[in-house]
Amino acid sequence: MQEINIGLIGHRFMGKAHAHGYTDVPIFFDTGVGINKKIICAGDKDVEEYAKRWGWENWTLDWHDVVSRDDIDLVDVSSSNEIHAEVAIAAANSGKHVFCEKPLALTMELAEEMVKAVKKAGVVNMTGFNYRRVPSIAFAKQMIDEGKLGDIYHFRGCYQQSWLINPEFPLVWRLQKKLAGYGSSGDNGAHVIDLGRYLVGEIEEVVSFQKTFISERPLASSSSGLHAEAASGSGEVDVDDATIFLARFKDKNTMGSFEMTRFGTGHRNQNRIEINGSKGAIIFDMEKMNELSYYNESDPEGYQRFKKIQVGETVHPYMSNWWPAGHIIGYGDTFVNQAYDLIMAIKQNKMVKPDFEDGLICQKILEKVGKSAETKKWEKI
Amino acid sequence: MQEINIGLIGHRFMGKAHAHGYTDVPIFFDTGVGINKKIICAGDKDVEEYAKRWGWENWTLDWHDVVSRDDIDLVDVSSSNEIHAEVAIAAANSGKHVFCEKPLALTMELAEEMVKAVKKAGVVNMTGFNYRRVPSIAFAKQMIDEGKLGDIYHFRGCYQQSWLINPEFPLVWRLQKKLAGYGSSGDNGAHVIDLGRYLVGEIEEVVSFQKTFISERPLASSSSGLHAEAASGSGEVDVDDATIFLARFKDKNTMGSFEMTRFGTGHRNQNRIEINGSKGAIIFDMEKMNELSYYNESDPEGYQRFKKIQVGETVHPYMSNWWPAGHIIGYGDTFVNQAYDLIMAIKQNKMVKPDFEDGLICQKILEKVGKSAETKKWEKI
Amino acid sequence: MQEINIGLIGHRFMGKAHAHGYTDVPIFFDTGVGINKKIICAGDKDVEEYAKRWGWENWTLDWHDVVSRDDIDLVDVSSSNEIHAEVAIAAANSGKHVFCEKPLALTMELAEEMVKAVKKAGVVNMTGFNYRRVPSIAFAKQMIDEGKLGDIYHFRGCYQQSWLINPEFPLVWRLQKKLAGYGSSGDNGAHVIDLGRYLVGEIEEVVSFQKTFISERPLASSSSGLHAEAASGSGEVDVDDATIFLARFKDKNTMGSFEMTRFGTGHRNQNRIEINGSKGAIIFDMEKMNELSYYNESDPEGYQRFKKIQVGETVHPYMSNWWPAGHIIGYGDTFVNQAYDLIMAIKQNKMVKPDFEDGLICQKILEKVGKSAETKKWEKI
Amino acid sequence: MQEINIGLIGHRFMGKAHAHGYTDVPIFFDTGVGINKKIICAGDKDVEEYAKRWGWENWTLDWHDVVSRDDIDLVDVSSSNEIHAEVAIAAANSGKHVFCEKPLALTMELAEEMVKAVKKAGVVNMTGFNYRRVPSIAFAKQMIDEGKLGDIYHFRGCYQQSWLINPEFPLVWRLQKKLAGYGSSGDNGAHVIDLGRYLVGEIEEVVSFQKTFISERPLASSSSGLHAEAASGSGEVDVDDATIFLARFKDKNTMGSFEMTRFGTGHRNQNRIEINGSKGAIIFDMEKMNELSYYNESDPEGYQRFKKIQVGETVHPYMSNWWPAGHIIGYGDTFVNQAYDLIMAIKQNKMVKPDFEDGLICQKILEKVGKSAETKKWEKI
Repeated sequence: MQEINIGLIGHRFMGKAHAHGYTDVPIFFDTGVGINKKIICAGDKDVEEYAKRWGWENWTLDWHDVVSRDDIDLVDVSSSNEIHAEVAIAAANSGKHVFCEKPLALTMELAEEMVKAVKKAGVVNMTGFNYRRVPSIAFAKQMIDEGKLGDIYHFRGCYQQSWLINPEFPLVWRLQKKLAGYGSSGDNGAHVIDLGRYLVGEIEEVVSFQKTFISERPLASSSSGLHAEAASGSGEVDVDDATIFLARFKDKNTMGSFEMTRFGTGHRNQNRIEINGSKGAIIFDMEKMNELSYYNESDPEGYQRFKKIQVGETVHPYMSNWWPAGHIIGYGDTFVNQAYDLIMAIKQNKMVKPDFEDGLICQKILEKVGKSAETKKWEKI
Repeated sequence: MQEINIGLIGHRFMGKAHAHGYTDVPIFFDTGVGINKKIICAGDKDVEEYAKRWGWENWTLDWHDVVSRDDIDLVDVSSSNEIHAEVAIAAANSGKHVFCEKPLALTMELAEEMVKAVKKAGVVNMTGFNYRRVPSIAFAKQMIDEGKLGDIYHFRGCYQQSWLINPEFPLVWRLQKKLAGYGSSGDNGAHVIDLGRYLVGEIEEVVSFQKTFISERPLASSSSGLHAEAASGSGEVDVDDATIFLARFKDKNTMGSFEMTRFGTGHRNQNRIEINGSKGAIIFDMEKMNELSYYNESDPEGYQRFKKIQVGETVHPYMSNWWPAGHIIGYGDTFVNQAYDLIMAIKQNKMVKPDFEDGLICQKILEKVGKSAETKKWEKI
Repeated sequence: MQEINIGLIGHRFMGKAHAHGYTDVPIFFDTGVGINKKIICAGDKDVEEYAKRWGWENWTLDWHDVVSRDDIDLVDVSSSNEIHAEVAIAAANSGKHVFCEKPLALTMELAEEMVKAVKKAGVVNMTGFNYRRVPSIAFAKQMIDEGKLGDIYHFRGCYQQSWLINPEFPLVWRLQKKLAGYGSSGDNGAHVIDLGRYLVGEIEEVVSFQKTFISERPLASSSSGLHAEAASGSGEVDVDDATIFLARFKDKNTMGSFEMTRFGTGHRNQNRIEINGSKGAIIFDMEKMNELSYYNESDPEGYQRFKKIQVGETVHPYMSNWWPAGHIIGYGDTFVNQAYDLIMAIKQNKMVKPDFEDGLICQKILEKVGKSAETKKWEKI
Repeated sequence: MQEINIGLIGHRFMGKAHAHGYTDVPIFFDTGVGINKKIICAGDKDVEEYAKRWGWENWTLDWHDVVSRDDIDLVDVSSSNEIHAEVAIAAANSGKHVFCEKPLALTMELAEEMVKAVKKAGVVNMTGFNYRRVPSIAFAKQMIDEGKLGDIYHFRGCYQQSWLINPEFPLVWRLQKKLAGYGSSGDNGAHVIDLGRYLVGEIEEVVSFQKTFISERPLASSSSGLHAEAASGSGEVDVDDATIFLARFKDKNTMGSFEMTRFGTGHRNQNRIEINGSKGAIIFDMEKMNELSYYNESDPEGYQRFKKIQVGETVHPYMSNWWPAGHIIGYGDTFVNQAYDLIMAIKQNKMVKPDFEDGLICQKILEKVGKSAETKKWEKI
């Protein structure tokens, strides 16, 4: 049986999610290949402990150790944004398949180099838009492809988190341009933009409005996580706290409205997607990710209304591998679905979506959204 | 006891709503004045029948008959947009108090003349933004005024109807600029804009995107209602089917996003308002108008979440006059609340909000939203 | 044109609801008859003021004045339960059509006499189960009659109010057997029982569990309303605070579970009805009375789920007389629908449902529910 | 570091859930012990394949091989009900800690023997009421223990599945008394009963109504799963399709109503729990297991209402080990939480709840519920 050896970079939020993904694929899916958790890399000394608990055969503090090993098939870059480009390019140059979390890089230029590298190397490459692996979203895509919504009039994407409401929350890496590249737009916003492209199509132009509501924050005692403690001194937030923008999609001039904020008081992780088409409509919310509201314009008069489909039947994407209908899956399980698709692509040596190219296009849009906030004009993508 | 004599212009959708309002005020409110339904005017011959059924003492086919009567205290203009300005100005010039449905006029210039007329005459004047009389909205306003939401970061208003999805729906007056003035923006959009101003404050600048998805439709057999039949021939839709725009509010640069559409497949009358502030957040939806979702940032950790307040307790605005808690009111009842406030203003001879000035400001915003769709730039209000 | 003259007994909660009903029928419905609010009777001196405000031509403190008038066609008994039987029987004996609020009488025996009286007199008679006039319920009935739910397996009715949670709430008339006849079971419970019969069919036997959680309360300063003040001294609550019971319906042995409580903390007026059948299911909640959740077992696989139908389209019962789709009606409006059906029955001199017979059957069930709580056995109806 | 060796019996629905639990504990929790997936046993030949995919070191077709191994610390009985008692007793007699899925045994007598066996052996023992490990439920328990609900007036538990609606669904083992012991009552009902005991307290007496709606079904091609194919011939369903019962709890005579059905058309897996107390109320639904609706009677007037707490904050039970707030967990993850608690109990050699005693009490209630359906009287537990 074919064996796929994995090297994982990162062991915090995304690192844990990906470790979970590779661990659980064999429990829920029959891939026909062996999945070996070969080596994990992280900058913290506790990586050894995590390697042991999570079942990784080896560990290292230096990502070069991963990329340079002969026995690694896949390098999974789930570290902070800062080193994405360097690691991913080195991995591709070493002929490894590469997974990289979003956003690909700190700048569009770096993202372009990453795309070049994987194309040149001809390796399987994937960007971490895991929301495409939420069964409800995959089912929505299927419905749209089948024409169930008809022509799309409106796309409405609104991603609200609220962890910055407190002015004393410290200046973690996600609030610094040199470490994160973008603020809310590149973090949760990238997911909405990708879903817009995935479900509706390419975006032609945008006009935006960005704000940093609280521009000075206490320094963080460490720059590594969401739950950092405050330290003495303060620093400038130089990324967007919130971004709203209008978009014109290429296809039939669909109207798009996008909103992404870390000041969405009341919401922890609402990623609400609404699509209105000539034949139907859908509504999705990541906090209720097992549901997909669906409206069918051709239902009989008096019986037309949104139906909250519980996307948990065997006919729904991925779900025949999980539990009986009505037994929901969680956020972490989307990484199992994602890992499955990636492993199968490597096994069959074929491309998988979303790839680095998708990551790059998302980044192009992020750049133009940022530019429009300055020029105060519509910007072509 | 003081008696207030009313002359009503219109007997269709809004005419019925207003007739209902004046009829029911005495049942639910103790005004201390007599409310006399003196005369109703409409362009259709069946107005006589309606006058009789609804309890109006007199009827006429000519609005001049209403304005010129000495015994009329209040002229209520609930006819189609086309004659708003002419009637309201004549009424004010005759010293009558005037109510006028929104949008005030077909153009901003006419709206300005209306404001001048009522100011000069010194009469009580009110514009038909009845959503301010939804108890949930009035309660939201009260909460915001008390500081319960703190500084406002986001205002999100989205009004979705879907009665134009069918391409065979005919070219009724609401789809013609010369009769309606505006499309979706002036119809349901005006309500959202007014709620934005009412709840958050003045808007400083906007950038918009408008579309007419279906630009040619069958002629209507009559131009008078929502349920017109199609006739032979076709004509051009020259107003917006949908409008989305970004707005900067004056106060602390609050970010506003507005959306109004008649192609909101799946929704009959969703007017969803979301506000995120530094201390709390609210969500409202007109189809569930008895509920107001409220999030309090200062709730104890682990207990923070939106609460769907049923706005039906005696402590809620207007509700002590209605039913025991938990017994909801309907759309029509907002016109009873509105009529009550208007009658009390006339009784006490004091101003009432929203007045014609509010109607005019709304219209200024509509104009700039329309302009921005052409210039593709931000426009100052 | 035929004229129907009405005499109304009562001017508090139900009196107001009925006054509203008769007032608004002509605004929303075309009955082809004149509806005259002839005389209102109540035990309080302020009845004169209410008569004036609400537009009743005459008033009285003595119900005999109403029953004895020659010009009255319909006597509407919306007073407290205590005098229902006496007034209704006198009215029937005088040849008047009679409406009576539920429960018909303080005891089953009195209810039987009422049925005899109206049968003997041959007058139109109606009991106040106004929930049958909620469009969602009327639509549910229509669906069931059309076979859309197939064979009914489960009926689940749960009516929760919570106004007795506070132990200091005083001993109002609704808590005294001699004035109210029954506690929660006869008050909100009667509605659930009637809906069970209306939607599913006759009940064959029941087994119950009743409790009075707080058996002593401060005396009320007046016995007349929900909002009475406490006075000095205390008295015994001798009716049920809550009742739960199981029921076997005649038809195919459908399983019924009923729950009615004034200790349903958190709920002001939740009347939740759930029905599961072989072909579909419905869910209704009175606090969201414009919605009817509907599940269709024959929907395609993967698309099966409850749909929250907004019962506000012209094809839905009563709704073509109200507002455009998506503009909801309220609790009070169900009394307009009810008044319309009653007026039309009188006009056409035909029977209308629910009649006194329905009121009596409901009361028989209430008696057996009470008995079962004592015998601790199933009781046949 | 201490090592705990596990032997798992079963590899279908529950077997998979438990394998997942033991696999994922180390990823999400820091137990400080090694967890070794030593051996898996199942009656099907494909067990070898599952052992390999899921990472079990050994496999067997005979459960005696598991019980007799010296190196096994914990025997996990997740097979079908039929062999629960035999395996669990043998395991206890061999001095193994034992986990057993619910219901413990086919009869109450067997369950009693199981309790005796584990008590005699002094081993850690646990019954598979995994719903106690849903963070929302654990949080509800915490709230009740802290007195947040005050005195409990009502417990309402309603578990609806609908997989038997189709009369052609075959006679799987779950529909046969000799293999399953009970029908809906012992399957999903056991969960509701356990939650009633866990959250409110002991049940004193019950009165019930049970039905088998479809008493004859096609034979199943195999008796092993939910998705069995129909074979030729038919057989009798001799367990309950649905059970409803009333209960009196010991504590303050709380009123309980229970409902469990496989004919709950429209619901795949709704386990709805409602509790009303003197100070507050909660509502839970397993299909939305990350939410807990909470009503606080002491909220300020006008602000009282159910709040849908997203149980995903670090302060909520178990959740600090999972994802950032707003990133939900799934059904399968409750088995990780459960496995964690069990492992920690074994590590510390202390008892854990729910133990076999809890399983037995649940079974006693099931027996009395069954008896009451025959005697048609209240039965004491």
